[in-house]
Amino acid sequence: MSRQGNRGTEGKKMLWYLPFISPSASMHLMNSELFTLTYGALVTQLCKDYENDEEVNKQLDKMGYNMGVRLIEDFLARSSVGRCHDFRETADVIAKVAFKMYLGITPSVTNWSPAGDEFSLILESNPLVDFVELPDNHNGLIYSNLLCGVLRGALEMVQMAVDVKFAQDTLRGDNVTEIRMKFIKRIEENIPVGDE
Amino acid sequence: MSRQGNRGTEGKKMLWYLPFISPSASMHLMNSELFTLTYGALVTQLCKDYENDEEVNKQLDKMGYNMGVRLIEDFLARSSVGRCHDFRETADVIAKVAFKMYLGITPSVTNWSPAGDEFSLILESNPLVDFVELPDNHNGLIYSNLLCGVLRGALEMVQMAVDVKFAQDTLRGDNVTEIRMKFIKRIEENIPVGDE
Repeated sequence: MSRQGNRGTEGKKMLWYLPFISPSASMHLMNSELFTLTYGALVTQLCKDYENDEEVNKQLDKMGYNMGVRLIEDFLARSSVGRCHDFRETADVIAKVAFKMYLGITPSVTNWSPAGDEFSLILESNPLVDFVELPDNHNGLIYSNLLCGVLRGALEMVQMAVDVKFAQDTLRGDNVTEIRMKFIKRIEENIPVGDE
Repeated sequence: MSRQGNRGTEGKKMLWYLPFISPSASMHLMNSELFTLTYGALVTQLCKDYENDEEVNKQLDKMGYNMGVRLIEDFLARSSVGRCHDFRETADVIAKVAFKMYLGITPSVTNWSPAGDEFSLILESNPLVDFVELPDNHNGLIYSNLLCGVLRGALEMVQMAVDVKFAQDTLRGDNVTEIRMKFIKRIEENIPVGDE
């Protein structure tokens, strides 16, 4: 990964509620519990606002995308991570640096496709769902879908178009939580790519 | 502060979205940026849902209250803080242990009332508002009001009724951010006190 300017966001309307994070901001290291609860409140609010789980999943992904677009600046500044040479290196940086930094966990990278364009992040624990139980009427909810949007938005800013989705989720009865990431294409620098 | 059971919550409907946090859960130490952005998304969603800032402030306080009621368990388990002998000790525990643990900051405790029943927490930096700018049409928004609710809810669980509000806010042009806390009364253990 490397920062090559923010051409993808130029001309985009900046949303006031998405704070700019400057690398000069003091770093606050915090326990994840307040975050877990705040995220729970956000999901609930969306469940009140939208008619069905599918729409909530979409909103979470979209919110995450907008966050990822902002978070990448902070990430590159703090982590001093340089350009990744291939998708395998990108996978390692995501798992070992980014997840560690922003969620305090280190997923394992696994299930590579033969072509090397797809892999899975296996989360042994997921701070977002600590002790969450989905009620019966929300079977279709992909509770942590925000994370997919964050990854998609952040990678787009470093010229990588990726498809990100939950393949398994302990919250939905699976044994592990698995995020599947698929490389789509390298984005040309001067073609703005937007969410909508 | 000391834990004396959860009688205040008995009989209350537990909200599914507020995860139970168990002290046996692994602790995740994370940078605050993702939390900052997630909180921003929550506030924005509320601004969309409610007609005026006053109503949003109320909702943030209410959400915070529900979080505080949950968070106190985690706090007491992790911090090993025992019963506080007076309000001054409580103030110190809040500033030096709780804020440090959950937000990564240590506010200063100041402006004690002569009777010792009121003090201020001065936040030199507030991770919730890092680089947030309020738009002109949200002059009445108390952006970080969730924190007041969290403090109120958590203290109620240790039998202290307190009034908590923002007295100053850098986001609204003040020089510092100041949370004012006023001791109201000690709650008898077997009288359930609810939010509504």
